[in-house]
Formats: sequence, C-alpha cells, structure tokens
Amino acid sequence: MSKTTDIPFFDGNVSFNAQHAALGAFFSFTCGHFGTRGGFGLQIGTPGNQDLFIGVKDGDRFSRSPLKVLPFFEGAATDEAARYDVEKKTADAARPMLQVHRRGEIRRQYGLATDRWTTPDFSFALYTPFFPLPEPTPAAGEALRLAILPAIIGELTIDNTAGAGPKTAIFAINFTDRGTRMLDDAGRVVGFALGRSMGVRAIPDPQSSARPLHFMRWTPESGVADPSTHLLGTCPGIGVTVPAGERYTLRLAIGAHLDGVVTTRLEGRYLYTREWPNLEAVLAAAAGRADVLVARARELDAELLASRLSPAQQFILAHAARSYHGSTQLLDVGGEPFWIVNEGEYVMINTLDLSVDQVFWELKHNPWVVRNLLENFVRHYSYVDQVKVPTPEAIERIRSQHVASADVHNTPRTLGTAVPLELFELRDGGISFCHDMGSFNQFSPFGNSSYELSDLVGCFSYMTAEQLCNWILMATCYVAKTGDVDWARRQRHVIDACHRSLQNRCTTGQGEYVGSPGLDSGRCRSGSEITTYDSLDHSLAQTRNNLYMAVKVWASWYGLYRLHEHLGDRAMSERAEVGAAQAARSVTTQLRPDGWIPAVFEPGNPGQQSRILPAIEGLVYVLYCCGCEHRVHRDDWHLNADHASLIAALRTHAATLLGDEQQRNNFADGGLRLSSTSDNSWMSKIALAQHVARRLLRLDEDPQIRERLERADRAHVAWQTEPQGKSGSAYWACSDQIVNGVAAGSKYYPRIVTSVLWMEE
Amino acid sequence: MSKTTDIPFFDGNVSFNAQHAALGAFFSFTCGHFGTRGGFGLQIGTPGNQDLFIGVKDGDRFSRSPLKVLPFFEGAATDEAARYDVEKKTADAARPMLQVHRRGEIRRQYGLATDRWTTPDFSFALYTPFFPLPEPTPAAGEALRLAILPAIIGELTIDNTAGAGPKTAIFAINFTDRGTRMLDDAGRVVGFALGRSMGVRAIPDPQSSARPLHFMRWTPESGVADPSTHLLGTCPGIGVTVPAGERYTLRLAIGAHLDGVVTTRLEGRYLYTREWPNLEAVLAAAAGRADVLVARARELDAELLASRLSPAQQFILAHAARSYHGSTQLLDVGGEPFWIVNEGEYVMINTLDLSVDQVFWELKHNPWVVRNLLENFVRHYSYVDQVKVPTPEAIERIRSQHVASADVHNTPRTLGTAVPLELFELRDGGISFCHDMGSFNQFSPFGNSSYELSDLVGCFSYMTAEQLCNWILMATCYVAKTGDVDWARRQRHVIDACHRSLQNRCTTGQGEYVGSPGLDSGRCRSGSEITTYDSLDHSLAQTRNNLYMAVKVWASWYGLYRLHEHLGDRAMSERAEVGAAQAARSVTTQLRPDGWIPAVFEPGNPGQQSRILPAIEGLVYVLYCCGCEHRVHRDDWHLNADHASLIAALRTHAATLLGDEQQRNNFADGGLRLSSTSDNSWMSKIALAQHVARRLLRLDEDPQIRERLERADRAHVAWQTEPQGKSGSAYWACSDQIVNGVAAGSKYYPRIVTSVLWMEE
Repeated sequence: MSKTTDIPFFDGNVSFNAQHAALGAFFSFTCGHFGTRGGFGLQIGTPGNQDLFIGVKDGDRFSRSPLKVLPFFEGAATDEAARYDVEKKTADAARPMLQVHRRGEIRRQYGLATDRWTTPDFSFALYTPFFPLPEPTPAAGEALRLAILPAIIGELTIDNTAGAGPKTAIFAINFTDRGTRMLDDAGRVVGFALGRSMGVRAIPDPQSSARPLHFMRWTPESGVADPSTHLLGTCPGIGVTVPAGERYTLRLAIGAHLDGVVTTRLEGRYLYTREWPNLEAVLAAAAGRADVLVARARELDAELLASRLSPAQQFILAHAARSYHGSTQLLDVGGEPFWIVNEGEYVMINTLDLSVDQVFWELKHNPWVVRNLLENFVRHYSYVDQVKVPTPEAIERIRSQHVASADVHNTPRTLGTAVPLELFELRDGGISFCHDMGSFNQFSPFGNSSYELSDLVGCFSYMTAEQLCNWILMATCYVAKTGDVDWARRQRHVIDACHRSLQNRCTTGQGEYVGSPGLDSGRCRSGSEITTYDSLDHSLAQTRNNLYMAVKVWASWYGLYRLHEHLGDRAMSERAEVGAAQAARSVTTQLRPDGWIPAVFEPGNPGQQSRILPAIEGLVYVLYCCGCEHRVHRDDWHLNADHASLIAALRTHAATLLGDEQQRNNFADGGLRLSSTSDNSWMSKIALAQHVARRLLRLDEDPQIRERLERADRAHVAWQTEPQGKSGSAYWACSDQIVNGVAAGSKYYPRIVTSVLWMEE
Repeated sequence: MSKTTDIPFFDGNVSFNAQHAALGAFFSFTCGHFGTRGGFGLQIGTPGNQDLFIGVKDGDRFSRSPLKVLPFFEGAATDEAARYDVEKKTADAARPMLQVHRRGEIRRQYGLATDRWTTPDFSFALYTPFFPLPEPTPAAGEALRLAILPAIIGELTIDNTAGAGPKTAIFAINFTDRGTRMLDDAGRVVGFALGRSMGVRAIPDPQSSARPLHFMRWTPESGVADPSTHLLGTCPGIGVTVPAGERYTLRLAIGAHLDGVVTTRLEGRYLYTREWPNLEAVLAAAAGRADVLVARARELDAELLASRLSPAQQFILAHAARSYHGSTQLLDVGGEPFWIVNEGEYVMINTLDLSVDQVFWELKHNPWVVRNLLENFVRHYSYVDQVKVPTPEAIERIRSQHVASADVHNTPRTLGTAVPLELFELRDGGISFCHDMGSFNQFSPFGNSSYELSDLVGCFSYMTAEQLCNWILMATCYVAKTGDVDWARRQRHVIDACHRSLQNRCTTGQGEYVGSPGLDSGRCRSGSEITTYDSLDHSLAQTRNNLYMAVKVWASWYGLYRLHEHLGDRAMSERAEVGAAQAARSVTTQLRPDGWIPAVFEPGNPGQQSRILPAIEGLVYVLYCCGCEHRVHRDDWHLNADHASLIAALRTHAATLLGDEQQRNNFADGGLRLSSTSDNSWMSKIALAQHVARRLLRLDEDPQIRERLERADRAHVAWQTEPQGKSGSAYWACSDQIVNGVAAGSKYYPRIVTSVLWMEE
C-alpha cells in the first residue's frame, strides 16, 4: 500500500480533465471531467473517446450489489442523482447495478505528477512521472528507458480493513473503437488491450494473496459479474476482490505502442520502438518499474510542494506539465532523434512560436531537444526571402488601410486591404524559419509551414520577422543555459545569417534602420506580416511598428550580441549592440507622459489605444540568460543607458497597466488581460509577463500589484477548471486562449509550461 | 473518353450506398446514399466518415459560379431544394456557392463492376474490377498484382463540346479524421492523401492538354477558387478546367495502404505490402493500370448483363459482390498467405458459417482460398470436445424447457432454462471447428472463437455440430470443384476425424443413431447448441431434432461419402451412406399429410408450427457437387430410395411453402420469409433456397411459383435500396438480416454472394 502524499485537496471545481501523459509518445490518458469520455488518446490532440468505469462494489465479483464508480463516462449525471440512469440513451431500462459517486463524495489531489481521487469507498491515482531525457544514444540505457517509456501508472486502493465481507474493485474501459482483446498470456498476465496500440495490465499487490481478475462484456457491471469473458465485448476490465480485513493496492500499467512509420515526408517511428517491440513489452516494462515510477512521481510532487509557488501557481504548472507531455513526440527519423511538440488541438508540428516559449521548460529538463529543434529548423524549415520596400504609392495605400478588428475570438480577421506586390521593390531579406513543420504527423514541404499563406493581412499570414527572432532567442537561451559554445561555433554561419536577415528587415527601406521590422517578407506577396498573437486584436496583429515586436527585436539583438561575444566576433557584437540600442530607443521614445506605451506606434492606428502586457515579454530572455549566469543584477547591459532606459520605461508601462485604477488589463474576475482592448487572453503569455513583472521588474514589491497578481493567479485556475461541458476548458485539459474566462481556442495546449519560469530562483 | 457501357439505368431508388472495394484490402470507398457520409473505410466494417463533393461549375476555377455536386455529404437535402443550405448545421450563413443535384437529376447504372451516376452536367463512375486471385507465389507476377492492388478507379466525365466557356469539375473529400496532405512530388503528381493510409491521384486525360489541378481548404467551393493550398485544410480536392469544345475524362486512382502488422496473436501484414511499399506506390500502380482495370470492369459488367439473370437478380449479385470484396483481407502471416473474410459490421474473422456459404463464390473465382481457410481452421481453430449424454433427470428437465422466442430482431434470446452439466454424462465427441477466428483484427485464443460462450441456450452458444458440417461441406465442395484429391489425401486424418465426430453426435446417447445431432457439445456446459440462424426464431435455433440441421447432416454424410470414395476407403464411404440414409429417413418420416415438414421434430415444441425454407438449404451441396461433375440428373444418390425420397419430400415441402395460398412464407411485399413464424429473413439464405428451388427442384416450372419468386426478387432489391437514413439498409450497402423489409442486423455484409449460384448453368 502506498503512503498518501501530502498534496492538499484541490479546493476548486474538481471536475476537470488532465492529460495523464508519458513523454514523447503523443499519448495521453485523459480523465477527470465528469460526464464525458476520455481515456486513451493517441496522436489525436483531443481527449479520447472511451467511457471509464473505476469503482467498487460490496461482495465478490458475482454479488448483486451495485458497482459505484467515478463519473468518468458520458452521461454520468453526478449532480442530479446518485443513481445513473441510461434510460434515455439506450433501449435498456435503468442500470440499477451501476451507481456513480456524486461530486461531493469526490476529493482530488493534483500534484505535479500525481492525480488522486478519493471517495468514501476507494481512492484512484494516476502517476505521471517524468525523468530527464538523455540524448538517445546506445549508452543512454536505463535512463533513456525511464524517460521514454510510453506508459503511466494507475493505482486503485481499497481499504477493507474494517469490512465485514469482501469488496470488489474494478477498472474498466468501454471502447468506442473496436478491436478489444484480453492480455491472457496463458494466465500469467491479467490485462486488456485495444488492438496493438493501447492497453492496461494489472500489477498485483505483493502484500496480498488476492489475485487480479479480468472480464469483458458490453458493460462493466455485467462483465464483472460474469465468469465468462466475451471476446465480442467492448468493455474489458481488470478487478480484484479484497477480503475483509485487507487493504489492497491494485496498480495498473497503462501504456501505448505504435509501430512502424507514423509520419509522411520525413518518415519517423517512435523512438521507443527501439526499446520495446510491442505493447506487451511496454506494459511489462512499466509493471516491472512501477515502484521506481511512483517514487519519482512523489519526488516531483514534493519538489513542487516545497517551492515558494502559491497553490494556484502550483496548479497551473502541474496542469501545464501534463498537457505539454501529452503533446510531445520523440521520433527516430532515419536513425536520428527528432523532437516534436505538437500544437495542442491544432497538432501543428513544432510551431516555432511555441518552441521559443517552451524553451525554458526544455532547457530545465531536456536541453538537447532545443538543439535538436534549432538544427531541424535550419535543415528543413528555414528559407531565404526578399523583403518588400514600398513605393510611395504603396506607402500611401498602407497608410489608408483601415484596420478593423473587433473581438471575434479565433476567427481570422482582415486588418486591411492587401496592397499589390507590384507596388513594392524587392530587396534581399535573408534567412528565416517556418511557423511550423507541418501538422497531424504530415511534414509540410521543406521550407514551408502548414500555417502560413500569401496575400493575407491577418491570421495565417507569414510571421517571418518574429520566427527569425524566435530562432535567435532559442539559440541564445540554449547557449546561455548549457554553455555549449562548440555548438554555436558550428552554427556560426546561421547566426551570422540571422544577424544580416534581422538587419535587412529593421529598416524603412530608405536607408534608415529602425527598432522593429519595417519591411514585410516578399513571401507575404500582397499581404503583410503578423505576430504570433494571430487572433488577439489589432494591438498585437501587425509586425511593423509594434511595441511587442520592438522589444522582441531588442532581445534578439541582445541574443546576437551574446552569441557573437561567445564566438569572439567583436565587430558583429558591436553591430548587434547598435541594433539593440536602436530598438530600445524606438520604444522609450514612445512612452507617454501618463506612463504607458501604445501597442502600435503608427499615428491613427487603433492600436494606439491598446495597453499591452506583452510589451515586457521580450525582457524574459535577458532575465533568463543573466539568470543562467547568476548575474541578473549586474549584467553590463543594465548599465548601458539605452537598455537601462528601456527597462525603466517598460517597468513604468507595466506598473501603469498592473496598477491601473480602472483595471483595464484585468477581467472582472481579476484574471489578466493581455491587451486592454481585447477579451482574448493567453495563459502561456500571461505567465511570461507575470514572471517578468515579478522577478525582473519587482513590481510585486507594491502590495496592491502583488495582491492583484495573486488574485489573477486564482482566476486563472478557475479559467482552467470552471467551464464545464465538452466545449469548456475543464474538458480541454489546459487551454491557452481564454475569452472572458472560457477557453475559446488553443485547447489541449502545451505552451502553458512557460509557468516553469516561476520556479526560477 | 470512355464509351458508356450498356448497363441499363437502375429503375429503383438510386439513393443507396455501395462498397466500392478492392480485393483483400479490407477497404471500401463507400458512397451512393444521399445526405450521409462515406468515402474511405479501412478495417472498420461500416461506411467511412467523409463528405464527398463531386461536381462541376461553370467557368474556370476562380469563377463566381456555384459548384453543383452529387449529394454525397451529410445534410445534402436533395429532395427539398436544389440549393444546399447549411445554416442549421453551422454558424455560417447559406452556402450559395455550393448547390446539390436533386434526386430527379441523377440517374444511376449499377453493373457488376461499374457504378455510374449521370447528371445533366457530368457523369461520375467508380470501377471495381476483380481478377482471379492466384496463389501468392513469386511466380504469380502481374496476375497477382492486378488481383490484390488495393485501389479502385474513379472517372469524372465532363462533356463541354457544346459549351461556350470553360467548365471546372472537382472531386474533393472533406475528412473528419485529421492528417490531410497533398501528393505533390515536385508537381509530377496531382493528388491528396490522409496520412499514409488513403489517397487519390489524378490521371489526366491523354486526349486533352488541360492539366488537373489540386486544392485544399475547409470547403470544396472555397478550395477550388483559391490559388493557395492551405495545408491546415480538411477538404483536399482534385479538379480540372475543361475548355469549351472539349470532352474530358478525369480518372482517379483511389487507393489504400496499411503498412506493418495489423493483427494480434497471429501477426499479419497485408499481402499487398509485398508488392508496394507505400500509398504512393499503390496509386502509381493503379494509375499505370487504369486502362486495364476499366476494361476488366466492363468485361465483368458485360458478363453479368449477358447472363439469364433478371435485372433484380443482377442487382443483388452486383451489390453482394462489392460488399464481399470490401470485407476481404489477404494477409501475409509469417510468409504464408492467410485469407480472411470479415463478417460485415460485426467484423468477426472468417466466421465459418459464412465461409460455407461463400464457398460457391470463392470456388468460382479463387479456389485456393477455400483450401487456405480449411487448413487454417484445422491448424488453429479446431478443437476436440466431449458430448453430453443426458441422464433421465436431464431428459425430463430438457423436455420441460419452455421455448420462448418472440421476434425480437437481433437480441439474444433465452430459449429455456439451462440444465446443469452435472446431470449429463460426458463421452467422446470429436473434432469440430470454431465459429470464427476472432474479431476486428484480433485473433482469438487458438481453439476458441470470439462468438461462442458456455452456459447459454440461445444466441452466443456453441455451434459445434453445424460448424463440423460446415468444414466437411467446404472440403467436399473444394474437392468436387478443383479435383484436388491430393489435398484430400493429405487431410485424410481430418476427414476421418470429422466422420467419427459426426457419428458421435448423431446419437441419442442410448446407442441409437439419429439423423440429426442428438447430443450437445460439452463446451456448452449447462447450455445447448444453436444453429447459424442465431437470431431468427425458435424454428432454427436449436440444433437437436431440427429439420434444417437434419438435411445439413444428410448433406455432410453425402460429402463424407464422396471424400471417402476419393480416398478409396470403401468401408468409411459405406458408413457415411448409412448415416445419410438415417438422416434422410429422419426427415421423410416427418412429412405431414398436408405436404410440409415441421421445423423442429419435438412434439409440443413451437417449432412444430414453423414452415422453414432453409429445410432445402442442405440440398445445395449435392446440387453443387453434382453440377461440378455435370451429372446433376444422373447422380447415383438420386437412385437410392432413401435419398430420392428425401429430395421428393423436400420438394413437396418447398412447393407447399412457395405455393401456399396464405403466403405464410412471403412478406406483404412478396419477399421471402425463411420461417413462416418470423419477421426476420436473411438475404444470403434466401438466395440459397431460391437456387435449390429453381435449379434442383425445378419449382419454377409452376407458373405461379415462378411469378412469386420473381416478385420476391424485386422485393429483395427494394429491401436493399428503399430504407433510407443512417439506420436504413440503403446506407448499409448490402445487408443480410432483414426484418419486414428493413435491415435489422448483419449489415455491410459479405455473405449475399451466395447469389453467385444463380449464375450456375
């Protein structure tokens, strides 16, 4: 029997899904939201489609007592009645043999790697430990196996020490897809599977002589009570009858296995197939390592509990970690490891503007994957473009473009009319990187993303300048964290090309250098570049003359400066410093007397009215890199007047927004609004802004701001857990894009691991 | 441009699905039913889940003309209005750019291997040729490749010879599953795919200089009009702009490919993967062979048209052939070919009581697969049982069992209370065969089916005696058709074991031999054996004392007689003749003075009231085997008094049923009722009975019976085509189990190829 950890009971709405996931397998076992399906999801970017039945009945398996289960199945109407009635759904009469625990009977502990539900009858936990991921060389051995094992551990605990008779506990899954089978192996294994790809194996309690049993029918209550397994059944299960006087811990290895090539163009297999040939081997490996896996989960739980993070912050990080892991995919492409994070529900492969945000998590846990990403972007998903220098007529037309951007949630918007490509002169641009590498396991044609299109001035246009910054910033962080200067040396030609490319974009085209990108990529054709905030509002839509981009460009110059210094290239580092100073000045000169900086610098642009927190996002890279060197307070860049002024201006800006009497950057619930003019907010980006505000700008030294930030944290937890139903964020297991407190897009999303920065000392 | 074949236009309801399938790939491209989804279905046993858009618009691809398409997508409300309006389904306004052809505008030609829809604007055909399947040896070469190519050919024909401007035709699929991609291959190929498993490639018209185009967005009408392909789209398509004055035939290779092991326990790969490594290779192979494939389809069409079958009969056979092909799966298991027919929507692997019915089709087209089936059943799915000899108390209890079987469609019924196993004495039974080999690609434990369970007296009980007969009858037919006596010699030990097993069952247990199985298998434990008619009614439920089984046992003895004769074993063949004579007498003695034989011989059993057409089913094997030897009218068995009397008695029985004034064996629409006491009827079994009635018993020499049989044929067509909606048989592309004219079970079913017997001379 496992000792209960001291994770406190979650005090919010316990009906929310979590992606209980292994690393690199693009596999989650999602459950927790009441009344909907979940379970195994492989390569789908959504919760699974299975009804889960986890519970206990009095007596042995054949007893006529009802089975009382957790409400993890479709139609489990937990609030209305204790008894579940499917009359409306099937031709059957009520199911008196199946009862469901009411909400009030279920308590939940949600740690970094343990998720446990406790009812009066039993407790059920899912352990999702993660380990440092070594580079997958033959020498990596057991450390690699622990890290990439595509399995998690379940644990059903029945305390029958005070019982007068036996109790029978079950864990059963009713599959919608067909192909159920039992894992009999001549009686040596108790378990079940769906085809070759997903399965569950019982791990008996070594303290007890009671042996697990298995069953399969069309319902759990009929299956457990039937001595014969029907192979046509859809609902296999595992159970155990616990004698009176015993306490039994039934552990479950819950695993996945996909063999063969799973992607197109670049043909990748799951790297775990190097270690385990099939599902049975995965489940055996997990069963044999259950103690190690559970111990690691407790270690991770304890680490988070011991941090200085508030319960609300701990929740966000724990929730984010699971969704991140569920989106990861470690492939073997022709013998080389290929690291992928899929973009949540959109399942785009390695969206670069997510990669740059996830770099903090990855550098903490698995730094080599950042190098792998950087190199794969260079190799297959970089391109060299031209930039568009507008003719006077084009300038005139652009000036008269009408930016119209109401809050339309996640719908692509037109911010203005396109200006024909013929009205521009094309000049050398330089290297940049694709938005992503494809989607849903389909690698896009090399040099192209699945997302970007020409001839648009809104969503789905190119993000050329920002993706260039993203590669530079990831490389900067990688070298800062790992000290891998050798890598920088091997990438010198790319770093230099990035420098030239950034320089070619940060100009008006009339010979003047400017702080932010002044020219759009020729790839846009008649359209214009956008930022990663593609569906927020006008304040963060256009790349040109944008506050957010100016600070990000400043940070990129800072990164190039650092990289050139590492490479001993004084001439280039000086030029980078000049670029940074220009960027800094382009921002500081915009500071308004009332203490904030407009989102878009162009006069007349409605972005002039927008107050944006992402203004300070770019500072995170400086903070991070200096933090890596333990010199956050004495970095020479702070001493340079331009940069000190920039940081001071942004501190003033952030203090104004966070201390605003009208709370224009807060929602009614206290949650943070990225743009004062939008109801759209993204949790991952809020976490970055919060981190900068607290750790670099020290704004939480102001008690009012500190209290507001803490209230915001609590609101952000409610965003993830309160909205119920299949469209609500509680179903969608960590969502990024929230409109007025409800998930509106970017669901089932990995990026919220930006919150790992909160753990930085 | 293809010459239109002379398949007449179908004069019934043209809104019905067909499984456009390749052989051995467990793949169908299903469409034809209006307003529902279809398209690719791989290994699922149901229609696919894609919206198909096939149609034409005036002008080039960018024109503002509406696209007018076939109604092969969800919500295509063809009868209400020409314009399709999705307002109720999505938040969008109407889709004025998408219109749908009304029912009256669509004519359909449904041949054996061509399915063509003709509208005023265009015609669209799907060719599903099939070839003799050689044994898959390396020497099989191109003949094997043609037979197992997992692809079909589509053909979109636009006659713009009289047009004033261009027209643009498209073929697009909106996928529900994600993972769409374009097959660009540097511009040499126009096509699209979903992941690695299914795709479509354009085959340009060699007569024209117009080149096919491709597109992808979220709808076909936006996709075709957009010059940029969005890789995040769900709706890829192929199109062509046909200049005024031209007629264009755009052919499409529509193919599937699943790599790697697809089954469990026995680990099988698709045999086609020996020939083609991936989807692209399959599509290239199909494109290169399009002319051959289309020519073969026309040859098959012509063969059926030239037969003496009525249009209704031709429809049934054409419909059946497609569903059969869609259920077939040719695997490579460890280097050996493994033939599978999946059981329609139930997807049981090689259900033996289907195999025996499909033997006539398979022996005509691909005889070696029957041998493959027989051997695989012996090797992994045979067992040796004991039989249950009832004690006097058991006899008493069985006698008082109350048989209660109302028509409850496909719901398992209890025909009486079980009698405990302790009340029986167990004696040697012998060899028999499992009902099936597993389900949904999961092979069941060797020696066990996925279907059969102990302790039941209704559906899901064992079919031991009948499956024994089935193996014997398949072996008999195989040897009769192929003359492969060598095979029989190698199987002599199995044939002899079958003989002993049949003998051990056809006894009362008191030393008396009886004509039908008198003892149930010990595998039933407290239950009793059932027949393949598991969900019809009491008339065909129990094995003991059953008219249908008695005739089938008679046929099995006849088969054993023939096999023993082939083996030169005179002693055994004489014993088989004795068994046959006993079986024959057990039937003839039951003939009632009013000219029919009760379904169940036990006095007091409600089956006494049932008049069943399957009484004559067993005769089909004698007819078939004699037919193979061209001696149907002079077989010596006809001269033996017992057998001549049996055939005469059954002729009287069938004549009574088919000529019945009250038409108790007809439905109101004239369709045939297998049991006079059931509303449940199975098309595959009707076809067998019709064949025996017409070809052996010559009952259609009676004009009234002939007219009734023809009326029945027409009703049977309506059964398959009239019931609309997702639960109707028109959606389910050939269903077997029909209740009052509506498919109630056994949908998407392969077995209706019993109708191939109608082609026998």
